[in-house]
Amino acid sequence: MVNVEQVLAAAHDARSAFAALPPEVRAGALRGIADTLDAAAGELVPLAHHETRLPPTPRLHAELERTTFQLRLLAEAVIDGGYLEVTIDRPDTCWPAGGRADVRRMLVPVGPVVVFAASNFPFAFSVAGGDTAAALAVGCPVVLKTNPGHPLLSERTAELVAAALADDVPAGAFGWVRSEADGRTAVRDPRVRAGAFTGSLAGGRALYDLAAARPDPIPFHAEMGSVNPVFVTSSAAAERAEGIAEGYVGSFTLGAGQFCTKPGLVFVPAAAAPAFEAALAAELAGRVAAPLLNAGIAESYAAGVDTLRQHPAVRVLVSGVDSAPTLLGCDAADFLTARGSLAVECFGPTSMVVRYSSERELLACARSFTGELTASVHGSPADDVAQVLVADLTDRVGRVLWNDWPTGVAVTYAMHHGGPYPATTAPEHTSVGTASLRRFLRPVAYQNVPQALLPAALRDGNPLGVPRRVDGRAR
Amino acid sequence: MVNVEQVLAAAHDARSAFAALPPEVRAGALRGIADTLDAAAGELVPLAHHETRLPPTPRLHAELERTTFQLRLLAEAVIDGGYLEVTIDRPDTCWPAGGRADVRRMLVPVGPVVVFAASNFPFAFSVAGGDTAAALAVGCPVVLKTNPGHPLLSERTAELVAAALADDVPAGAFGWVRSEADGRTAVRDPRVRAGAFTGSLAGGRALYDLAAARPDPIPFHAEMGSVNPVFVTSSAAAERAEGIAEGYVGSFTLGAGQFCTKPGLVFVPAAAAPAFEAALAAELAGRVAAPLLNAGIAESYAAGVDTLRQHPAVRVLVSGVDSAPTLLGCDAADFLTARGSLAVECFGPTSMVVRYSSERELLACARSFTGELTASVHGSPADDVAQVLVADLTDRVGRVLWNDWPTGVAVTYAMHHGGPYPATTAPEHTSVGTASLRRFLRPVAYQNVPQALLPAALRDGNPLGVPRRVDGRAR
Repeated sequence: MVNVEQVLAAAHDARSAFAALPPEVRAGALRGIADTLDAAAGELVPLAHHETRLPPTPRLHAELERTTFQLRLLAEAVIDGGYLEVTIDRPDTCWPAGGRADVRRMLVPVGPVVVFAASNFPFAFSVAGGDTAAALAVGCPVVLKTNPGHPLLSERTAELVAAALADDVPAGAFGWVRSEADGRTAVRDPRVRAGAFTGSLAGGRALYDLAAARPDPIPFHAEMGSVNPVFVTSSAAAERAEGIAEGYVGSFTLGAGQFCTKPGLVFVPAAAAPAFEAALAAELAGRVAAPLLNAGIAESYAAGVDTLRQHPAVRVLVSGVDSAPTLLGCDAADFLTARGSLAVECFGPTSMVVRYSSERELLACARSFTGELTASVHGSPADDVAQVLVADLTDRVGRVLWNDWPTGVAVTYAMHHGGPYPATTAPEHTSVGTASLRRFLRPVAYQNVPQALLPAALRDGNPLGVPRRVDGRAR
Repeated sequence: MVNVEQVLAAAHDARSAFAALPPEVRAGALRGIADTLDAAAGELVPLAHHETRLPPTPRLHAELERTTFQLRLLAEAVIDGGYLEVTIDRPDTCWPAGGRADVRRMLVPVGPVVVFAASNFPFAFSVAGGDTAAALAVGCPVVLKTNPGHPLLSERTAELVAAALADDVPAGAFGWVRSEADGRTAVRDPRVRAGAFTGSLAGGRALYDLAAARPDPIPFHAEMGSVNPVFVTSSAAAERAEGIAEGYVGSFTLGAGQFCTKPGLVFVPAAAAPAFEAALAAELAGRVAAPLLNAGIAESYAAGVDTLRQHPAVRVLVSGVDSAPTLLGCDAADFLTARGSLAVECFGPTSMVVRYSSERELLACARSFTGELTASVHGSPADDVAQVLVADLTDRVGRVLWNDWPTGVAVTYAMHHGGPYPATTAPEHTSVGTASLRRFLRPVAYQNVPQALLPAALRDGNPLGVPRRVDGRAR
């Protein structure tokens, strides 16, 4: 078993050769990982089920499919080359304020990245998940810290990734460590140039603090979850309470509520609340308990639900035994007074109905959020309050949904999975979708550099055929 | 005189209305500032000269011209709209891993930004400089902390900016504070969502640490200067030592060496060094002392030069009296041993010639840098070492120059003025050029949101005519 120093040294040694690989080789490496993982589904899915208790079908098979699709979509983005943001200024002695030289700018990989795997997506946000895929895609070696929740799956996935890469990329472009101490060592190591994390607020913040306190601080991209409020307008509640109740229960119980986009709060008009709560209770009546990921998460969940239940402002609407869904309720006035105790992420199948008595109170609740991955509005475009809600939520969240549910984050070009703190430590970036590549890149400009010494993407004639802006215009 | 709380409250109150302004209004506001400052040149340039001792012609007039050009170029970028990075996924039930909804992503302003003005560019990096222009361009209110080096000019410029904005934008979109304490208060204030700074390593790092230590950390973009090494290959030294010596002296004495891109070190082959040093001495013989910006900078400069002169490895090649240029020298072997004491930014008209005895030693010196704004290579494309040098420097700096000098950073589309720490605290971003807008933006995705509730840039039919990517392709 290699130690953390060997992994770090190998990543550092690999960085230049890895960064210099042609795009088709890096894309081929990503596709090779995807093919390898797909071929090993029969081995990996049972292992994942054994360690996480998540159901093989549809969940784990679908998650593995998502993971390999993600690798292939990022491979396409690497070939497309738009992510390089190539920008070329031709020399111009008449350019205002002193003329300009030949300046050519592109994004280059930052160097080795430490990636902390999550517990709740043993494929999609773990060893070969989105962070690893994005870093490898742009040419950054990855030092992967495995999640202790699925050690055997992590080990096997890491071996498969390493084997898939062996022919195409320098040794050291992918390595892994297992202990928290090794993870912290990697965050502090001068050879590591960026970090990525998916997990709890406490865990993400501690690592961000380590990264920021280095003699040479590095960007640290922690995605730390969210309460993901849902706002139901009066007209929506009047028109389709049952449909909304059904969708809401489906969303907050998906994956036993262990998603960072789980809706943790739904705001409904007080007048419609009794009927809505009854519809929720009916919907939940048929739901059985799904096991949580592991004993540690089950314990935290039980403690979290217990604290909420005992809060004087909280009503218990449906009391789930063990990990069967628990539904809580409170009034908006109390929510606004005690939001520090009530607007807390509770990882597992629970959520809270908040009754608001006026649109003014609804907006006050919406404006009480400061950093969320998502917020959802269920309404009608004719609602006067909808325009205000959408604008106000834009200020506070990474993704605004309309008559839709936040769980199930599609891997696409336009997806944004991020948000202001405490949703993430890096509000400028997403950890899902093709834009996630930008996290592990930084710009370099070449001034007056001869053709032969320029990277291929910047040369005259555009030999790589990448999208470019020349003299400020797309070419 | 308004206090910091009033400025912060006004910026916070202005943020939504300011962000919602149509692009042509924000662009018009930037052009209004530019026109106002141009019209006030007769008043501002003498004030700047009085406070900074920089020559009115060509320097201060040229710098004001650069500043107003920067405002107008960013106004053009606002109208172009490419900076919004609009990306649209049309709904597709067949999209792998579960289908996808209608998802539309764009960048939105982060909110109020605190900007710390620099001492050395009283126009271009001060009250109405690049940071202010970029933040206002994208719709972020600015809380400007003036630089104590030019208080009267700062006050007058700020009044002119505020007056120019008065008709077009909400009150509070631009405000200013004067004391260090007020600047720190702003960095810590929850209403402030990002920071920008140009100045010393110690100052920038202290503010970055404050921003990172907040209960809710915010991005802090500090540009903290650099040593900007220059590497001269054997063939270049043999072919054109005098031309290089002339260019080098011009660059390191420009603005009395008070530029963050001042070349502080030049690496020359030992064999050619005596002739090169003689050429430098001849070039410097005719140079007179230019006054430094203020007493504090003069004192720091004197102390810094003194420390370098007294270093046992350092030779004094030209000893400048007061602030006349001082040229130092050392050997690469000593440089590599004592680089912590020798590769230090000394703000003022001094630089050091480092004699290297082999290409191996040259590359070792190049590889000893970790984070610089620029590095320059003077060579011939036929040099075997040139390819290696350019690749290695790409790993370490923000801008690589070939047979050119780093001072005089053009304001263009492709310019990158940034670099890994300690050049900046935010290696992903530039503080000069149109790409500087990206610092004060974050993405938001809208999922399934009806046309009437979408921002104009995301609506069907592209009413703003901005560049967009639809289903992964440029449209």
